Amino acid sequence: MDFSLSDEQRAYQETARQFADKALAPFAAEWDADSIFPRDTLTEAGALGLMGLYTPEDAGGLGLSRLDASLIFEQLSQGCTSTTAFITIHNMATWMVASFAEPEVRDQWVPQLAAGELLASYCLTEPGAGSDAGSLKTTARRDGDDYLITGTKAFISGAGSTDVLVLMARTGAPGPKGISCFLVPADSDGISYGRNEDKMGWRSQPTRQINLESVRVPARYRIGAEGEGFAIAMKGLDGGRINIASCSLGTAAAALAQTRQYISEREQFGQSLSEFQSVQFRLADMATQYVAAQQMVRLAAWKLDQMDAERTLFCAMAKRIATDLCFDVCNDALQLHGGYGYIREYPLERHVRDARVHQILEGTNEIMRLIVARRLLAGAAL
Amino acid sequence: MDFSLSDEQRAYQETARQFADKALAPFAAEWDADSIFPRDTLTEAGALGLMGLYTPEDAGGLGLSRLDASLIFEQLSQGCTSTTAFITIHNMATWMVASFAEPEVRDQWVPQLAAGELLASYCLTEPGAGSDAGSLKTTARRDGDDYLITGTKAFISGAGSTDVLVLMARTGAPGPKGISCFLVPADSDGISYGRNEDKMGWRSQPTRQINLESVRVPARYRIGAEGEGFAIAMKGLDGGRINIASCSLGTAAAALAQTRQYISEREQFGQSLSEFQSVQFRLADMATQYVAAQQMVRLAAWKLDQMDAERTLFCAMAKRIATDLCFDVCNDALQLHGGYGYIREYPLERHVRDARVHQILEGTNEIMRLIVARRLLAGAAL
Amino acid sequence: MDFSLSDEQRAYQETARQFADKALAPFAAEWDADSIFPRDTLTEAGALGLMGLYTPEDAGGLGLSRLDASLIFEQLSQGCTSTTAFITIHNMATWMVASFAEPEVRDQWVPQLAAGELLASYCLTEPGAGSDAGSLKTTARRDGDDYLITGTKAFISGAGSTDVLVLMARTGAPGPKGISCFLVPADSDGISYGRNEDKMGWRSQPTRQINLESVRVPARYRIGAEGEGFAIAMKGLDGGRINIASCSLGTAAAALAQTRQYISEREQFGQSLSEFQSVQFRLADMATQYVAAQQMVRLAAWKLDQMDAERTLFCAMAKRIATDLCFDVCNDALQLHGGYGYIREYPLERHVRDARVHQILEGTNEIMRLIVARRLLAGAAL
Amino acid sequence: MDFSLSDEQRAYQETARQFADKALAPFAAEWDADSIFPRDTLTEAGALGLMGLYTPEDAGGLGLSRLDASLIFEQLSQGCTSTTAFITIHNMATWMVASFAEPEVRDQWVPQLAAGELLASYCLTEPGAGSDAGSLKTTARRDGDDYLITGTKAFISGAGSTDVLVLMARTGAPGPKGISCFLVPADSDGISYGRNEDKMGWRSQPTRQINLESVRVPARYRIGAEGEGFAIAMKGLDGGRINIASCSLGTAAAALAQTRQYISEREQFGQSLSEFQSVQFRLADMATQYVAAQQMVRLAAWKLDQMDAERTLFCAMAKRIATDLCFDVCNDALQLHGGYGYIREYPLERHVRDARVHQILEGTNEIMRLIVARRLLAGAAL
Repeated sequence: MDFSLSDEQRAYQETARQFADKALAPFAAEWDADSIFPRDTLTEAGALGLMGLYTPEDAGGLGLSRLDASLIFEQLSQGCTSTTAFITIHNMATWMVASFAEPEVRDQWVPQLAAGELLASYCLTEPGAGSDAGSLKTTARRDGDDYLITGTKAFISGAGSTDVLVLMARTGAPGPKGISCFLVPADSDGISYGRNEDKMGWRSQPTRQINLESVRVPARYRIGAEGEGFAIAMKGLDGGRINIASCSLGTAAAALAQTRQYISEREQFGQSLSEFQSVQFRLADMATQYVAAQQMVRLAAWKLDQMDAERTLFCAMAKRIATDLCFDVCNDALQLHGGYGYIREYPLERHVRDARVHQILEGTNEIMRLIVARRLLAGAAL
Repeated sequence: MDFSLSDEQRAYQETARQFADKALAPFAAEWDADSIFPRDTLTEAGALGLMGLYTPEDAGGLGLSRLDASLIFEQLSQGCTSTTAFITIHNMATWMVASFAEPEVRDQWVPQLAAGELLASYCLTEPGAGSDAGSLKTTARRDGDDYLITGTKAFISGAGSTDVLVLMARTGAPGPKGISCFLVPADSDGISYGRNEDKMGWRSQPTRQINLESVRVPARYRIGAEGEGFAIAMKGLDGGRINIASCSLGTAAAALAQTRQYISEREQFGQSLSEFQSVQFRLADMATQYVAAQQMVRLAAWKLDQMDAERTLFCAMAKRIATDLCFDVCNDALQLHGGYGYIREYPLERHVRDARVHQILEGTNEIMRLIVARRLLAGAAL
Repeated sequence: MDFSLSDEQRAYQETARQFADKALAPFAAEWDADSIFPRDTLTEAGALGLMGLYTPEDAGGLGLSRLDASLIFEQLSQGCTSTTAFITIHNMATWMVASFAEPEVRDQWVPQLAAGELLASYCLTEPGAGSDAGSLKTTARRDGDDYLITGTKAFISGAGSTDVLVLMARTGAPGPKGISCFLVPADSDGISYGRNEDKMGWRSQPTRQINLESVRVPARYRIGAEGEGFAIAMKGLDGGRINIASCSLGTAAAALAQTRQYISEREQFGQSLSEFQSVQFRLADMATQYVAAQQMVRLAAWKLDQMDAERTLFCAMAKRIATDLCFDVCNDALQLHGGYGYIREYPLERHVRDARVHQILEGTNEIMRLIVARRLLAGAAL
Repeated sequence: MDFSLSDEQRAYQETARQFADKALAPFAAEWDADSIFPRDTLTEAGALGLMGLYTPEDAGGLGLSRLDASLIFEQLSQGCTSTTAFITIHNMATWMVASFAEPEVRDQWVPQLAAGELLASYCLTEPGAGSDAGSLKTTARRDGDDYLITGTKAFISGAGSTDVLVLMARTGAPGPKGISCFLVPADSDGISYGRNEDKMGWRSQPTRQINLESVRVPARYRIGAEGEGFAIAMKGLDGGRINIASCSLGTAAAALAQTRQYISEREQFGQSLSEFQSVQFRLADMATQYVAAQQMVRLAAWKLDQMDAERTLFCAMAKRIATDLCFDVCNDALQLHGGYGYIREYPLERHVRDARVHQILEGTNEIMRLIVARRLLAGAAL
């Protein structure tokens, strides 16, 4: 075992941290307050390679490992959780196209996606099917050389502001095996977008419902074979869970850093807050939880990089515990800031609002428990 | 022991519930979204007696017990946590004036306060003194028949929209014993208000900093003797803690009711959410925590009504555990709603944002623990 | 609402406390270490009426309410959790005979049971049916004026040392409706007892398996009608859950009292443990949890006394939360005692071992959650 | 980063697992019940190198890393927590002698210690100084070529059955800087042993108080310079904390394995326990907590191997969280076993009793929090 980061990994972290400090952190509060989707910033991120981190190099990405990407996302999310979370979703969707689309389609779309010139949304969830994604009702009917896609997608990150939809639709029988994956240009005829959902957090990225009415998509835009869509979507999600968990890590790291500073500066009853034993104990627990969460995410990312037989199990464990522990870290940080934690002049309440959705998205933490339990009961070795 | 409510108490609850259903609940989301302080609604509340619940009848209030008031606040906050929380603060401040001001001053101000025609703010906290309220720096200097008050108050609920400030200022030596309490007309010369703090929740009530520069107040507006101000402030807070805890109860009750409905209606994997055992277990724990919180609040209110020797201990215990447990109930309710819990179309995320500050206000839950520990170590019987 | 105890209740508490102090506490460690079932002490308890607290007066009991009994059991268990727990089970079984047996049978057995001259065991659980009690396999076959009972009961408190078995057996179809309740003299032919189970705690009372082979019991010893046995067993358990929860309260109260004393006396780093803020905070939380647990138990006992429609719901909530919170109080008390908490010279580790089983017995806390959830989903009002 | 174990590490694990399966597990219940210290088994362990795992090879040990040792201890403790915990303490004490004693003394004692032919106790704690070890009162007074040691040590593992005491005594001024470390032959004149403490768990190893009255020890038996004793003791404890945490891991792993088997076999309500969603969720959380704990321990061990500047911080974090999480895993495992979890026929209640002390020993988990907080406030990077 070797827990050290390579020089290259440290350099990636440094680059990401600088981008977070300069291009994200100074604007995060405003993006949150005014629901601004920072498209220009995403383009800048693309120029640094951040929009195609684990997309293969020959498709225009950096070809990094999932672990490398996790390290980078953790740094970025210290600057803005919400924007980084979108970046991770774009990375996931881009990787899916790069990995499973026909070469021609891949060459047509991926370079611009990986460069951040085009943006992608991941379209799985439907209004009636949250955790039960395999029961989705959107249909893709073959019509000559095309498919006609009809249905409704819900809670789609970036929807209305992205260029490419990586969308799961039913081409066959009910259940997961009847689902295929498609690349759908976001401005196709027949697509309409709902209003920007007014969310608790993640406010720098729009979330919209997407209605598709007989949207015509060339058959070559199908990603993978018919019936492989759900499996591809799930492959994307293994990494997606690490990504979201990494965003929780960065948010917690920011909350922790701000708390260390605050309790050292703030005085009450004639002494620094940091001299109160109850404050010290809580700080210690916050830091310990953060490190534990971080190790779990890194372990899972490494298992995914290794294509370990139990990578799905470890990704689910990491997503569950990291998003839970890091939410608690943020919430404790808010509490230690007292009234200042509750106002938007300080970032703590934003951290809590942003991190909260990580316990729900990319498979709720309840679904994570089901995944973990099923593998354990099937005899998985830990 | 008798855990039953009297017919009169049930009638109060019913009245409050109707007001909550008609005058609060339909508007709560909008008040939250647009930071609207519903002054007209507060006047209506006053017409029902809700603005002077435990103010003595001879001063224009309803003369109810703290337990009665708690039952009512729990109902009201099911309609709008934030607005009800302001009502409770107004009740506390009004009670202070009614209980400790000179008869003439009391007769001048309290009837209109109890009727909701005038609104009051409670002004204790200062920027440098959050939990350490006894170290406050605002001074009141005697000048003939007046006092001249100079200083800054922070996080004042209602500030800028209220008519009366019940304000603690230093008239003597450092420490709690040097503090006096004053009624300060909110439009007095020398008072200026900061911007409305942009808060995580409690957005239907403004929170502002108040700057006082040589604000002239007649000496008869001093509430209680010189040096008694901190004790009076703390007496107000015993009840204030029950009030805030009652708002947590109502918020949790609303979250619980919405969850019972949602999980019965929402289907996943071919069955109602309510048929999943993990959902059932969580619902059971939420309900149990809510009832436990409620009992603690009622016990403490009753102890306060009895002027029990350990009323401060029990109020602190109740405030701590009720606000913690009810926050968890709201947060669990959000989780059980999945993505719908995270968007403002549903009230869950608002409940979480509103209930969060109850763990901080009226003495943080850390200060509650100190109060509890001190009494226990001094030999208090439970 | 009235949270005060009556003078009579205080007198009961005082009597129970004196008995606990003199007859239980001094011997509890030895009974635990040497697995001694203190039969003589139980006879003494009977002389005080403690063995038939809520058995009707006309059957030889004290005819107290469940709330009264809870107050008494809480005091007793401060002296010895394990022995008090047996007393509560005996009370439950005695009440079942007194309430549902034929008058003749009742008059024959209950006076001696209520006096503690005879002891009773409650026999529901079987090796293959823990939580799923309704599936029990022990059969009672009618044979003329008798029943012949055959089967195996497991985890029976007092078995081998008691005189009367209140035993559930199947007289009809599978499921709860086919079960009847019987009074079985413990020395009947065909009964054999397993070895005394070596348990983590509750070591002052024997726990044995009971094997019944064609045990002949007069038909008049059936308690209630055929098919009513499960309902009667469950009626007993509503009270049984309050009783066990009351034993948790007393154990926690003892742990709390010992902790208050210990942290005031023990010094570390030049000051009393009680001066460390982290110790203070934990003490505060322990006390708050204890009071919350106590209120829930008293509320449930009162609901049972009132025959409230939701008494089963409230008993289940109380049993769940009180046994969980009080275990945590005991476990925290152990921790605050450091190494001394871990050795048997101090009572803390015994409290932990004894209180642990309360989360399992009389329906596991998981079953409690199911009961609570079912009632809530059926629309129960809280 | 590389989370894989080397072939060599896997081989160590396999050897340890076999020893655990054959030489520990079959006897653990009996050793616990009868308080048997399995000296012969320890000699066997020594023959395999298990008594000097990280003692340098040139001193007779295996010269393994702390990480290797952690992997091995985790396997061993799956067989018997209590016995493995003693092995870890012996390893720690042996390492201290090997690392800091004069060459002659080292050569005299360490080979036999590392071979398990002699056993060692670590003697730091005193009756009046639990967490505040630096205030210890045992004195070592120079007397010619000897020291005369007088004082009392408390809670000493193995005391009375070991051959060597690695003992901290005061040679100088009050405080940590006045402490020196000594090798004291356990049968020296003037040493007397208290009774074997009757403990909640860890019952296969004796724990005794040691009284020293003018015990004469050659000056060359001082380990390290005068005044360096506390620093040496703390260096030992960094590893000691990893060791104890590793024992928690193994205990949790055993509890988890037994639970997986039990819930797959046990039926209730007509289906396997493993089919109940609440059981699945709890199993998932147990496994996740176990893996998180394991990663933290391995990270800390690796930091210690690297002599990382923050090794003490990471060892403290790992010890705190691993012993807490693993206790919870064991306690949850007990609960899932229902009544069977509470009886000694099954190992669950023993796991709970054994694992409980890990939250207290080698620095309580409260002291761990202080260590973590101090380093964080001093600016430690995570």
